[in-house]
Amino acid sequence: MSTILKGIAASNGIAIAKAYRLVEPDLSFEKKQIDDSSSEVQRFKDAIASATSELEVIRNHANEKLGADKAAIFDAHLLVLNDPEVISSVEGKINDEKINAESALKETTDMFIMMFEQMDNEYMRERAADIRDVRKRVLSHLLNVKIPNPSLISEEVIVVAEDLTPSDTAQLNRDFVKGFTTNIGGRTSHSAIMARSLEIPAVVGTKTAIEDISNGDLVIVDGLNGEVHINPTQEVIDQYTQEKVKYEQQKAEWAKLVNEKTVSKDGHHVELAANIGTPNDLQGVQANGGEAVGLYRTEFLYMGRDQFPTEEEQFEAYKAVLEGMKNKSVVVRTLDIGGDKNLPYLKLPEEMNPFLGFRAIRLCLEEQDMFRTQLRALLRASVYGNLKIMFPMIATLNEFRQAKAILLEEKDKLQAENIPVSDQIEIGIMVEIPSTAVLADQFAKEVDFFSIGTNDLIQYTMAADRMNERVSYLYQPYNPAILRLVKMVIDASHKEGKWTGMCGEMAGDEIAIPILLGLGLDEFSMSASSILKARSQIRSLNKSDMEKLAEKVLQLQTNDEVLEAVKNVTSL
Amino acid sequence: MSTILKGIAASNGIAIAKAYRLVEPDLSFEKKQIDDSSSEVQRFKDAIASATSELEVIRNHANEKLGADKAAIFDAHLLVLNDPEVISSVEGKINDEKINAESALKETTDMFIMMFEQMDNEYMRERAADIRDVRKRVLSHLLNVKIPNPSLISEEVIVVAEDLTPSDTAQLNRDFVKGFTTNIGGRTSHSAIMARSLEIPAVVGTKTAIEDISNGDLVIVDGLNGEVHINPTQEVIDQYTQEKVKYEQQKAEWAKLVNEKTVSKDGHHVELAANIGTPNDLQGVQANGGEAVGLYRTEFLYMGRDQFPTEEEQFEAYKAVLEGMKNKSVVVRTLDIGGDKNLPYLKLPEEMNPFLGFRAIRLCLEEQDMFRTQLRALLRASVYGNLKIMFPMIATLNEFRQAKAILLEEKDKLQAENIPVSDQIEIGIMVEIPSTAVLADQFAKEVDFFSIGTNDLIQYTMAADRMNERVSYLYQPYNPAILRLVKMVIDASHKEGKWTGMCGEMAGDEIAIPILLGLGLDEFSMSASSILKARSQIRSLNKSDMEKLAEKVLQLQTNDEVLEAVKNVTSL
Repeated sequence: MSTILKGIAASNGIAIAKAYRLVEPDLSFEKKQIDDSSSEVQRFKDAIASATSELEVIRNHANEKLGADKAAIFDAHLLVLNDPEVISSVEGKINDEKINAESALKETTDMFIMMFEQMDNEYMRERAADIRDVRKRVLSHLLNVKIPNPSLISEEVIVVAEDLTPSDTAQLNRDFVKGFTTNIGGRTSHSAIMARSLEIPAVVGTKTAIEDISNGDLVIVDGLNGEVHINPTQEVIDQYTQEKVKYEQQKAEWAKLVNEKTVSKDGHHVELAANIGTPNDLQGVQANGGEAVGLYRTEFLYMGRDQFPTEEEQFEAYKAVLEGMKNKSVVVRTLDIGGDKNLPYLKLPEEMNPFLGFRAIRLCLEEQDMFRTQLRALLRASVYGNLKIMFPMIATLNEFRQAKAILLEEKDKLQAENIPVSDQIEIGIMVEIPSTAVLADQFAKEVDFFSIGTNDLIQYTMAADRMNERVSYLYQPYNPAILRLVKMVIDASHKEGKWTGMCGEMAGDEIAIPILLGLGLDEFSMSASSILKARSQIRSLNKSDMEKLAEKVLQLQTNDEVLEAVKNVTSL
Repeated sequence: MSTILKGIAASNGIAIAKAYRLVEPDLSFEKKQIDDSSSEVQRFKDAIASATSELEVIRNHANEKLGADKAAIFDAHLLVLNDPEVISSVEGKINDEKINAESALKETTDMFIMMFEQMDNEYMRERAADIRDVRKRVLSHLLNVKIPNPSLISEEVIVVAEDLTPSDTAQLNRDFVKGFTTNIGGRTSHSAIMARSLEIPAVVGTKTAIEDISNGDLVIVDGLNGEVHINPTQEVIDQYTQEKVKYEQQKAEWAKLVNEKTVSKDGHHVELAANIGTPNDLQGVQANGGEAVGLYRTEFLYMGRDQFPTEEEQFEAYKAVLEGMKNKSVVVRTLDIGGDKNLPYLKLPEEMNPFLGFRAIRLCLEEQDMFRTQLRALLRASVYGNLKIMFPMIATLNEFRQAKAILLEEKDKLQAENIPVSDQIEIGIMVEIPSTAVLADQFAKEVDFFSIGTNDLIQYTMAADRMNERVSYLYQPYNPAILRLVKMVIDASHKEGKWTGMCGEMAGDEIAIPILLGLGLDEFSMSASSILKARSQIRSLNKSDMEKLAEKVLQLQTNDEVLEAVKNVTSL
């Protein structure tokens, strides 16, 4: 029977292949009293040792196929695996309670998992997943059960799983794994990020894929629309085969634009920039013809570790990006932590509404040592390229003034130490809080540029948590209220001779792009893989027509009316 | 030695008197094994019985002195006290584990308290306080320890406590208790609400009052500025004695305006309305010369109970308010639940950011049975007065259209049943989400009126949780961005011949009032006790001057600049 599952489009493209179910191995065991606790401890140590060497193999494999930053996940696993607190707690349990290693491991890790899962933020909850993953591996060695090894797959398949752990994903062989689909996960889960990096189409969060799909079923993963077709009719297969060909042809067309300028039909140039997280991402920026880095998210330097990165480590990363971009503009956002992103070594209070809480610049203005270290690293790196510094979550002019004053203090200190600092650094802000958009005319007098962060701007303007499914209908990028705020920001910047970029999801959205072009947006920053498509679209549009479109949609009433109006005017 | 403590101003006024420390009784006990569990169960039952009759006395006392809605807290306590789940769990523990009743009670209630305290919302956390309160009472009977009875106080005192439980507060004798101060609590804690209702000056959240103050110390509670002075110098006492006289004289002056119109010096009339929670609050509205009810918060009908109120119960409440206001305007807000307010009988999902979540109209449009019941009750009551219906948390025109369509459907149904419904009901919305303020010109074509809910509008516009101390510096009512949004809403309504009110804290704020008058706000709705002061202020202002002030402050850059500008122009 043919079935369609709806899920979350986690990675673009279409895949058609047979299903390969990556099912959980049976790792069940009984809790047992043991007599000889010292030999039981030894059995546990042996399991840790073999799990460690297995994980090292996977880490090296990932390092080779996926790059150092992805392999870092397995470094984190190795850390968990050899965490002295966990090990001594398990050994203590074996010795004191005379129970078998499996039980001691389970009870100890349960405690840690519960602790992490109760934390009210996604990042920490994902640490719980890491522990589960590591526990599974150790248990498999204790129980002598083989856990599945997707790297053995030798024909084209679509992997179907409850969830893909980072180690599962890292073992996927790109030559054979054409796509995947999972029951759980969202656009920001590890598996989704991995899929985009591997450019494998993926649909996550289908809720029932693992129950509904049998081994060998023919499956279509539609990573463009978030659909999974199980045993579709020939008609559907044909249709998707055509779509797939079309999508790939289109990608090939877009690829021809890699060295072209981004100019509208009537000759207006805009800048297409990329959002990056690490220096490794530069490869993708270059491959996709990015004209700049519009958003370098520095959080990744701080995450997945147990202490702050040093000034030197940060300096090296910033320098690498600036040199890699060869004098093209690089907008670095200072640390945006808090909200849903926490650092294990930075104790933050539990908050009732973390998205409305103590995060980003609010935190940096309090934790000045941390902030100043980052600014010094940036200032020192500034001589290696075209650096622009951007402060996130600015809600008031006072916050901007404080942040800028701290930056200039650090600059003066460096110069007093005869350390060279560029004199050309532009200082700008993210516009992601409604107050800042409404007061953009005042901000424009003091900042060098704006970059509109639409993900947050939309959630605050609509008062709807973008992670909360119950209110996802309110996440409306085309709502005329949002577009009016965008216009206020762009107009305010131009009036003062400044520029405005956009670095939220909206900047790469084909419905939004015509409006944004019409509103006069100067820079569009998006994931590198969206750049060529956007360039192709902008080259097909007349800016003067889009100005009329923009003027019209600002007077509409709803998100849907705007969507319709754009579709009517463009060929979408 | 003279000391000053800073706290939260929970209830206005100044009190000077000797300290009466309301300290916790010693309710400590040992965990013991017992032999005769059936006599231990009996001992527990006896304690419950005497606690019940004691609590009934307090409840009746509260009912008489404080009104039925305040006494309802003790009904809640009586419910907790006789909760069969708790009782059978304690008895089970005594029987199974053969432990003394004190330990069984403590272990059982600890579990419930922990459960409630871990919940991520204030309302449920306060249920934990109820359980603690009830446990204390039962323990005192088990241990034969007398818990303090503040109703025995027979001289003028200021009560000093770690925290005041609802039952403590209910026992305060207003003739002798002149003020109080506590270590913990905030503006929305039970004790603070009680203090305002009793009109006793109070400062809560001082952190150390109970440690710093000894019995008999002379204490000044400055409920205007949130300060507590311990053994002040004669100079300070004299100064505060003068301030107290001045405050009371001023109150007496204001009281003369109870039947006056609210007209600016140059003859512009605005409406001063009251925010109410229950029909009982009408007494305060009348006593303070309220010209209308600008916000009837219907949540209270739904809270502190174990099932939805019936249509009939609601009808009676709405009718009572409409009749009580004698054809003066009554704006009823439909149910605004969710966020920080939950109902025990309405299972809502845990949310990461409840303020950005599934609440108010979002919930009502899904839970239509609940919503339609309320609307029917309102429509039926509409013939008894001048009803206006207002939908909360409207973010999009579609939401308003849906809500209005449901209302009209229910109206048609009632009319088909020959049940009379007024044809004069105005239908409006709260403007508390930035998108709605920005798009007010479009909304104004379809709604009959706006009421600006500044508490939420400010928190969303600034992206700062108003309950979160770490970001409280961003709760800026005078930020020009907020004022610009307010202007957009007022102008949009006037352009379509509609009116705009305001029902957040800002409407009664002496700094905001001159600006709001200048911006043309039509209705100011506030707590009844603020009305006379606001009337006095508005009667002292020229609207034409305030228009110039408003124009000026809209072009300022920061909250502080606006504050300064208002102070410069007015006599504040």
